[in-house]
Parts: sequence; C-alpha cells; structure tokens
Amino acid sequence: MTPRPAPEWRTTTWLNTPEPLTLERLRGKVILLHAFQMLCPGCVARGIPQAQRVAELFAGAPLAVVGLHTVFEHHEAMKLESLRAFLHEYRVKFPVGVDAPGEGGNPIPRTMEAYAMRGTPTTILIDAQGRLRRQLFGVHDDLLLGAELQTLLLEAQAGPVAGVQRPATQVLPAAACDDTGCAVLSR
Amino acid sequence: MTPRPAPEWRTTTWLNTPEPLTLERLRGKVILLHAFQMLCPGCVARGIPQAQRVAELFAGAPLAVVGLHTVFEHHEAMKLESLRAFLHEYRVKFPVGVDAPGEGGNPIPRTMEAYAMRGTPTTILIDAQGRLRRQLFGVHDDLLLGAELQTLLLEAQAGPVAGVQRPATQVLPAAACDDTGCAVLSR
Amino acid sequence: MTPRPAPEWRTTTWLNTPEPLTLERLRGKVILLHAFQMLCPGCVARGIPQAQRVAELFAGAPLAVVGLHTVFEHHEAMKLESLRAFLHEYRVKFPVGVDAPGEGGNPIPRTMEAYAMRGTPTTILIDAQGRLRRQLFGVHDDLLLGAELQTLLLEAQAGPVAGVQRPATQVLPAAACDDTGCAVLSR
Amino acid sequence: MTPRPAPEWRTTTWLNTPEPLTLERLRGKVILLHAFQMLCPGCVARGIPQAQRVAELFAGAPLAVVGLHTVFEHHEAMKLESLRAFLHEYRVKFPVGVDAPGEGGNPIPRTMEAYAMRGTPTTILIDAQGRLRRQLFGVHDDLLLGAELQTLLLEAQAGPVAGVQRPATQVLPAAACDDTGCAVLSR
Repeated sequence: MTPRPAPEWRTTTWLNTPEPLTLERLRGKVILLHAFQMLCPGCVARGIPQAQRVAELFAGAPLAVVGLHTVFEHHEAMKLESLRAFLHEYRVKFPVGVDAPGEGGNPIPRTMEAYAMRGTPTTILIDAQGRLRRQLFGVHDDLLLGAELQTLLLEAQAGPVAGVQRPATQVLPAAACDDTGCAVLSR
Repeated sequence: MTPRPAPEWRTTTWLNTPEPLTLERLRGKVILLHAFQMLCPGCVARGIPQAQRVAELFAGAPLAVVGLHTVFEHHEAMKLESLRAFLHEYRVKFPVGVDAPGEGGNPIPRTMEAYAMRGTPTTILIDAQGRLRRQLFGVHDDLLLGAELQTLLLEAQAGPVAGVQRPATQVLPAAACDDTGCAVLSR
Repeated sequence: MTPRPAPEWRTTTWLNTPEPLTLERLRGKVILLHAFQMLCPGCVARGIPQAQRVAELFAGAPLAVVGLHTVFEHHEAMKLESLRAFLHEYRVKFPVGVDAPGEGGNPIPRTMEAYAMRGTPTTILIDAQGRLRRQLFGVHDDLLLGAELQTLLLEAQAGPVAGVQRPATQVLPAAACDDTGCAVLSR
Repeated sequence: MTPRPAPEWRTTTWLNTPEPLTLERLRGKVILLHAFQMLCPGCVARGIPQAQRVAELFAGAPLAVVGLHTVFEHHEAMKLESLRAFLHEYRVKFPVGVDAPGEGGNPIPRTMEAYAMRGTPTTILIDAQGRLRRQLFGVHDDLLLGAELQTLLLEAQAGPVAGVQRPATQVLPAAACDDTGCAVLSR
C-alpha cells in the first residue's frame, strides 16, 4: 500500500511557537503529531509525557514533535485560556496547534475529521516527505514507537541516527547494588 | 569506528533452550544479550522485564533475546538450582546461559570479562553479522532501545520491520474516557 | 495543644451533591477535605486518586471525603464549566465545593485563606466534633494517612472501625506464583 | 470473636538481629509479621517494600516489623546463603527468621503450617498482648494497613500515636507547580 500525503492541518491558533507550523514548513523532518485533549486522562497521564520524552531523547534528530488540541467534547471546558494554563503547569514545551472547529455543527474538529481519528490520544507519524505512515489511537508502547521513529529517521538520512554506534556514556556510581543495577567496584 | 566482532560466549550451562547458543548459530539474527544477576534488584525490577517485552513485541522479527547470568558477587547464593527456580517464578522464557567462572580466582566470570562489562544489568546489541554494536550498563530507555534494535533489524533486512506501515489495530472500547484515552463514540 | 474548630467553608457552588455541604451538616463524621486545583499536576496524578481511594475503602465508615477547588492562579483557566468536565472525565464522585473568590483582589480564595493553606494539594482532617486535626501540603503517604484517619474514626466510635478483626477475605487464584504472590496449591 | 494467642514461631536461624526473636520477647509491642519467599515476585515487588516502609514510617512507635522466610517450594533454591545475599542486595534491615522445615516430609514449614498461611506474601498483625488480630494473603492496601496498625497501636498506648496532632512539617520548595503540587509563592 502506497503511503498517501498527510492531510494538511487546519488550526486556529498555535502555542509554544512564534509562528504557525505546517506540513510544508516541516518537510524534510519526521513528524510525531500528538493529538490530545487537555481533560483526557490517558493523554495527561501517558500520551503527553511520552511525546515530551520523544522530544527530549531525539532532540538531535531531524524530528519535530507537534501537539494538536483536538477537542471533540466539553468544548466550553477546554478553551484557549485553559489550554494555555495547562501547557504551562504541565511544562509542555513542544508547539501545540488548536484544531479548527468542525463545520456545520460537527463536534469533531476539522483536522481530527480529516485524519478520521477515533479519539484521543492519537499518535501520528509523518515521514520527511510529508506522507502519513502511522496512526494509532490509544497509548503506544515505547519500544515500538522508538522502532517506528527510527525507521522514518533512517529513511530520511543516509546514516544511522540513534545511539547504536555511540559509546556507552551512562555512568553509575561505583557502589554495590542500587535500584538501577550492580556495579563491579573496581571498574 | 569499525564495529568489531562480538567476543564468543563462554558458558557452562544453558536453560530454556534444548541446546547451547553460540554467536555462530545465531548469525543472521540481531541479538539482544541481557547480562544479569538473579539477586540484582535493578535487573529484576527493570532489566529482565524489558528484555521480556522485547522478546514479545519483536517476536516476528529476526531477533534473538538471550540472557547471560554473569555472577560476580555472592557466587554461593546464585547457583544453578537457584537460577532455575528464579527463571521459573519470574516466567523468564528466553534462553539463559550461565557465564563460565573466572580463571585464577577472578570473581568476574569469563564472558563478562571478555566484554569488559562494568556490572549488571548490561544490555548488549550484536548485529546480524555478529558484530558488537552497543553495550550499555544500567537500565536503558525503551524509546532508545527500540530505535537501536530497529536500526540493526533494518540493516539485516531489505524492508521495514516494525509497525510503521501496519494498520492501527489497537481497539479501545467505545466508551467516553478511560485510563487509556477518550473515544469518539460514533466511530 | 488543644485542637481548634475548623474554619467554616466559604463556597460559591457545589458539584456532585444535591445540596451544599457545611461543617455543621457533617458533624458526627470524620472529614477528609482535599483542596486541589484541576490544573495542578500533583493533584491530578496523586492527590485526587488518593482521596478517591479513601472514599472507596472507607465507604462503610462515618467518614466524608470532600473536595474543595481552591484556585489561586490561572483563574480564567479553571472556571466552573471546566471543573465540571474535569470531574466527569476523571470520574471524581465525591462532593466538590468551589472556594469563594478572595476579597479585595486577593488571588487566594476565602477558605484557602482562612485555613492558611500553602498551596495544592492540601489534605485536611477534621474530627467528628468539627475540630481541625491535621493539615498537610503536598502528597501524603498512604500508610500515614490511613493511620491518621483511623485515629479519628476510633475517637468517633466506641469500637474498632477498619479491618483488624475482619476475616481475611481476599482470595487469590490457586496457581503457583503470579504478580501478587505465591499460593500453596493445596489450600 | 475473641482473638486467640498467636502461635509461637518455630525457626532455625535469624538474620539482621543479634538474638532470636520470640513473641514473648516482643510482648508490649505491636508486631507486623511479613511472611515471604525470596523468589516470590509479589513479595519482592510489593510485600517486602511495604514492610520496609512500615518499619521506617512507624520507627518511633512501639511496633516491631519482623520477616519470616517461609519456603514451601524450590527449597534447594532458597537456602540460607541465598537468603543472606538477598537481604543484603535488597537492603532489608528488619530481622528475618527462617521458618523451620516441615515435619515428616511436609513441604510447608512449621510456622507457616501453624498459622495455616495460604501462600506468600502473608501479612500478620499481632497485638501488644500477643494475640493474632489480622492475617492477609496477598498484597495489602497501604491505607487499610495503616488504619489497622494504628488501631493496635492506639490500643497499646494511652494517647494517639501517629501524626494526627503533629504539625505539618513537610515543606515543598516555594516554586509554582512541580510533580508534587502547586505552592503559593508568597508563603
């Protein structure tokens, strides 16, 4: 099955970025698009923290982590002012777009509709050519997400991206055992 | 830096496998070698569960998850009979080799010495050509481990391995919000 | 030090209860008052779940778990409509009062001020006679909270309240070991 | 139902204590007896850590936390030398008795048999008069365990034991929100 171009985003506002983000602007980078609602417990407890860790751990890679606030219920409860405070309190640093309201009274906002998302959180991977490569509703396993991101990053680049050939730099204190492991004292 | 061939394993016994495993036998597969001690808290709480999840999540990939019991302290406390019960109670299913005792009174067993491991848990990645590509002491991040495994799996194969092009198959109940997420009820 | 009467609550609205709650109305019950903000990460991740577990585990005891929404920052972001959706999505079932706005431009709401709370979450224990017995800012340890609640419950009643003399009713499947424990198969 | 005297313990060895512990010696103290096996995953992950937290949090109270190694399977795998290393690596500080082997080939050790324990972990509460007041197979909830311990401690003493009347001493940094909570900056 040939991947299709990812539908363009339809947003009303952007936070955590000086100017709106578009697929066009991000061409050449792999995109992790995290669609969430600020009052969705699974997003708050697991989805958003996962997106934040991706942003931190892959900081050196040609990868953009982008949030999308796709409110499809309790619209009055999750307005811009609330979202802004939410991002502040939860220390979300990546750019977040606000999905444009659905047309003709449709409670589903426009980008969410265009991607036919089934709810929140939804994790979407777009490759460096702007093609939709993965869409997953619910919380994704870190091991698999890491593997999928790497596939797209390797496609986008000539050489390997993540740490396989990096030397092991994690240093543990030269004690016996702690919660992390047991060290050989003489090394 | 050119990767060097992974040192051969020196073991006395194997559990969870009908016959001993060697690098030679596993050629063509990516190997995740998890070196642990059964009384190392960090191995029990995090390292071994991570290796087990890799074995399950990448079950269809050309990947071998192999354990190595590298006892370098409390040797009398972690003999074969204890290890056997440990693997049973913790439901460890992947093959586990017992590292051969160090020579000349060296408390560090032989494979652990050959790889210059600094303690347990140590995670080692060996590529399909038998070369040592990654060695990490302590608990590794799932996202990065997933990325590193995928790099080696993609090298070993022509096409992508993990789920990027798979359809999203995870289905949540059509309720409002639960711990995992918020579903659009009409989909 | 003689315990002093708990300051009366000053609220504008109540949710999850047909009529407003007052200290007077709850006299004779021990009260766990959980002061929170819906956008306070520590409240969402730990404080509110703890209050909910208390409400469930001590359901048969003369104990009232009461929430108090004490917004002292981002007031525009946490209005009634947002709080209502929050309680719905997080399945908070206990009654929640909305603390009355501070006077003369004080951002600290009135009940929060009267109790001199230092932030959110704050856990407050009030005895059956309406006296303030404990006030703690931050997340409280379950073991200690259980002990403190029991002290007040025992004071309020003649006999023991929680499970000490109850027969052990928790039954595990008669398998070998699972995540919870190891069963004797023949029992 | 009148509580009956707790059966005396039958042990072969004690670790972490200069001399064997008996019910007689501990009279006047509340006892938390934690029966475990060192290769029981539920004991390692949850039961033993809970017992350790009780020992730390109630350090000032007339309470003795006592471990009992009740091996009823894999006897060869959990001998004294292995237990000793286990206690060292997991930093278990409370006294641990080794339950005496069952008679006539009974795999169930003698104290375990006398208490009719159903497996491990089992948590047993004995009051200051040496009477058996609670026996629970599986992992116990912290809130309920705290309440039950407090009941026995209050019985054993004239006044309250745990923190209800202590001033709130837990201090959080005067920052905005962190993982623990949101502080009022001016306090």
